Amino acid sequence: MPPDISSLSGGSLIVAWQLKDKNVLIVGGGDVASGRIESILVADAHITLIAPRAGLHPLTKHFIDNSDRITYHDRVFAGPQDLADIDMVLTAIDDVEVSRQICALCRERKIPVNVADIPPSCDFYFGSQIRSGPLQIMISTNGRSPKLANIIRKRIETCIPDHAGEAIEKVGELREKLKERAPGVGGDLGKRRMRWMIDVCSSWSMEELALLDDKMIARLLDEGWEKNQVPRLEDVGGHTKKASANATSVRSPSLLLPTAVGFVAGVLCSAAFLLTRPR
Amino acid sequence: MPPDISSLSGGSLIVAWQLKDKNVLIVGGGDVASGRIESILVADAHITLIAPRAGLHPLTKHFIDNSDRITYHDRVFAGPQDLADIDMVLTAIDDVEVSRQICALCRERKIPVNVADIPPSCDFYFGSQIRSGPLQIMISTNGRSPKLANIIRKRIETCIPDHAGEAIEKVGELREKLKERAPGVGGDLGKRRMRWMIDVCSSWSMEELALLDDKMIARLLDEGWEKNQVPRLEDVGGHTKKASANATSVRSPSLLLPTAVGFVAGVLCSAAFLLTRPR
Repeated sequence: MPPDISSLSGGSLIVAWQLKDKNVLIVGGGDVASGRIESILVADAHITLIAPRAGLHPLTKHFIDNSDRITYHDRVFAGPQDLADIDMVLTAIDDVEVSRQICALCRERKIPVNVADIPPSCDFYFGSQIRSGPLQIMISTNGRSPKLANIIRKRIETCIPDHAGEAIEKVGELREKLKERAPGVGGDLGKRRMRWMIDVCSSWSMEELALLDDKMIARLLDEGWEKNQVPRLEDVGGHTKKASANATSVRSPSLLLPTAVGFVAGVLCSAAFLLTRPR
Repeated sequence: MPPDISSLSGGSLIVAWQLKDKNVLIVGGGDVASGRIESILVADAHITLIAPRAGLHPLTKHFIDNSDRITYHDRVFAGPQDLADIDMVLTAIDDVEVSRQICALCRERKIPVNVADIPPSCDFYFGSQIRSGPLQIMISTNGRSPKLANIIRKRIETCIPDHAGEAIEKVGELREKLKERAPGVGGDLGKRRMRWMIDVCSSWSMEELALLDDKMIARLLDEGWEKNQVPRLEDVGGHTKKASANATSVRSPSLLLPTAVGFVAGVLCSAAFLLTRPR
């Protein structure tokens, strides 16, 4: 059924912005700025940080001292020259007027900008995030309730499959190796590649995928891709760490206890009835 | 503990891009393009769609016919003039050469661009998404495995609290009304507002928050904000729909069945032993 057009409204376009080797200017060094720095480092960008040293958050100091991807200037924002060669700007300062000026300068230059706490001066918002290696999850309430976003984030954290991050990493490596073995963009080969990758990801558990190493990947391609089938983990030399035993031990207590309680109750009732009845 | 700098790498910057009343050009009308159209409509942008009618996906046709936010041109991309006043460009066509040309034109003009299936021509990627009203969740594997992103999305869908979308909507309304009653940006009042909103969201369940209506919101502000406390749902005139009874009925079967099985087994074993023993 096609979606109801009227329901398509009130959201944002959630995207994974690519910043590898780009230049991001962060103005401000406090609590909020330290979170921004972390997010930008994750995205492999170079950071120019402008903030008087007196107001630096300990975490900001930690980043300045330990990352070779931050160029730090101990001063306030000085004007348009600070925007030369900058691909994105994030500000997190208390001065609303300066924040708005920076935003205006960015808009003139078509530099994407986020001004903390001033939504109209933001081309994009941040949300509540989860990260595990290459897996990134973002929860946005579109500015309605940061607290509920956090509650939902915590709930989601508990239900992400174990080993998801490692599994994604290994599947990424498998896909790269497969592309080396069967190169080309699109076409029938591209479709067959995609189909086989989907089959592998659907047949293997996250835990199994996470166990893949170079040798197993090579065997998986030899035994699987070349023969157009999906071998099991054991077929390519892998062993789960008693996965089934673990699975059982997680499930058992909730079933074992009531069963045992029922059994004892049954024995007692039955015994009481049979032993006390008149003969 | 401060994060390990070396672990901060290999990701993207996941953001909620704001497109309300912006102009987005979509080149292509097939399967992928229809998904893009839906995402852009959700974000309240205006769409210019360029694609020969012959290749339109049924869903794309549905959007063209039913949305007043799409300007449709039955033709191929014609050159730089198609980029006038455009804030973002998404292409989803088979012609790799034209795709790359469009990307180059966008980069010259600093227009954010996504070219489907050609990562180096993308300023941003899309991910696997969940949406419920104002709640948007995005799962990105940073291009490693769309299939695993989908598997994780399905898992997450099952664990999002019921009524989360409505709860967020209502909390957004509550926050707006609170700001009208206690206006101003930042400062002590801003902190008190934030603290009280957090207390409400922490004390009430999603189901309770979702039940809020205008009258209850007014009473919540009178009885709660004004008196610096958090009333219960019942205190502001609300009633949950037998939430506790439902909760019980969901839990019971999993305990009832093994208990009953155990009981019967106990009765049978005990009876067999007692009735067959020599007297």
